[in-house]
Amino acid sequence: MTENTDLKDYWENKTRLLPSVSIDCVIFGFHNNQLKILLLKYKNTNYYALPGGFINLDEDLEDAAQRVLEDRTGLKDIYLEQFHVFGCKNRRNDETHQQIMSASGINLKPNHFLLNRFISIGYYALVDFSKVIPTPDDLSDSCQWYDLDKIPHLMFDHNQIFEKALETLRLMIYDKLVGFNLLPTTFTMNEIQNLYETILGEKLVRSNFQRKILSLGILERIEKKMTGAANKAPYLYRFVRD
Amino acid sequence: MTENTDLKDYWENKTRLLPSVSIDCVIFGFHNNQLKILLLKYKNTNYYALPGGFINLDEDLEDAAQRVLEDRTGLKDIYLEQFHVFGCKNRRNDETHQQIMSASGINLKPNHFLLNRFISIGYYALVDFSKVIPTPDDLSDSCQWYDLDKIPHLMFDHNQIFEKALETLRLMIYDKLVGFNLLPTTFTMNEIQNLYETILGEKLVRSNFQRKILSLGILERIEKKMTGAANKAPYLYRFVRD
Repeated sequence: MTENTDLKDYWENKTRLLPSVSIDCVIFGFHNNQLKILLLKYKNTNYYALPGGFINLDEDLEDAAQRVLEDRTGLKDIYLEQFHVFGCKNRRNDETHQQIMSASGINLKPNHFLLNRFISIGYYALVDFSKVIPTPDDLSDSCQWYDLDKIPHLMFDHNQIFEKALETLRLMIYDKLVGFNLLPTTFTMNEIQNLYETILGEKLVRSNFQRKILSLGILERIEKKMTGAANKAPYLYRFVRD
Repeated sequence: MTENTDLKDYWENKTRLLPSVSIDCVIFGFHNNQLKILLLKYKNTNYYALPGGFINLDEDLEDAAQRVLEDRTGLKDIYLEQFHVFGCKNRRNDETHQQIMSASGINLKPNHFLLNRFISIGYYALVDFSKVIPTPDDLSDSCQWYDLDKIPHLMFDHNQIFEKALETLRLMIYDKLVGFNLLPTTFTMNEIQNLYETILGEKLVRSNFQRKILSLGILERIEKKMTGAANKAPYLYRFVRD
């Protein structure tokens, strides 16, 4: 949708979306030893939000989530994980929604389905920061990375959705290949420990971490990193794909 | 709803339910060394299904799930866990739905919202078999326990929903207090090992299992079970509530 009239028509008149259900994505990237997430800022407002979207009537839920992720990052076929459904009856605020829409020149009729109650299905994704092209959606004018300790107040229950995603990521950290997309193809033990410490928000004892991560059978040791004296060079590792 | 006219009126005319979203519950119980789930059979049909329901417009999602569980089991405040959202575009079959409704004397107009696409939020519950009073819903004439190896063909994607619940339960078996509601208040090491073997569908080595389950810090050893020679009596355990 490049024309504003298309955008207006789409939201005001078309109803090819599944009622009552939205998707919100917590997209994690790792850069300069910081874990970050992507946030949108709605046009002409001070509302920040997680990237999200709706489900087309003829679209599978998982495809809708992949589409949202691709539209905001340019990446295809990224590992996405459903982590929670947010379904409190009062979780959305109609006035906020009307403000956001009218700030983009869209006027929703009072009975428009977008103003009704929605439940939201939360997904998290772990992406390669260097490959992402952050792209705002039709209603927002910025899409940017935010360090986890600098996340602004988000609209609706989006802060809570983010917190739950981080909590799930921490719980799953030794069960899923969380580093797979967050780290470069090869990395040192220091680098992966750094990532784990950043996600967990705490320091880990080197020997314990190394024993644990190696015991999972997900890492393959390849060669020494050649950057000076060979006897001091750390080993490089990569993930074993099964 | 005791009167059939109320039931007819409720489904044919009332629309106080959130569109597009349903709930399906996989309710696990443990009895005679068998893991079982509760299934409904729709009136005057051969359709079997998981207990489920919809969300009232003024009801939180979690409350709706608790209500479904209470209505089918008589139990309140049971630990329920969301495990997956099922959102394929073709997951429901309108004809099946019409058949089920008309077998209960309810005729849905062709544009009735119940005949539209629904996504379903899967919950699993672990309940005390001995306390459950299985209770059919308005559209079904039986609500019964089925051993996991004797589950009939279920309607829609309910077999897949059950499989995913079991898979999740197996993944979580050492992270959650899965035995808490499935076992009596006190139990022997044999009994809890039996439960774990039944859920996992495989035999476990006694010494390994005992070491692992005790290392979780969720069990408290209380006293020997007095049933004969004291030197052969096994210890009893109970769960530590935090």
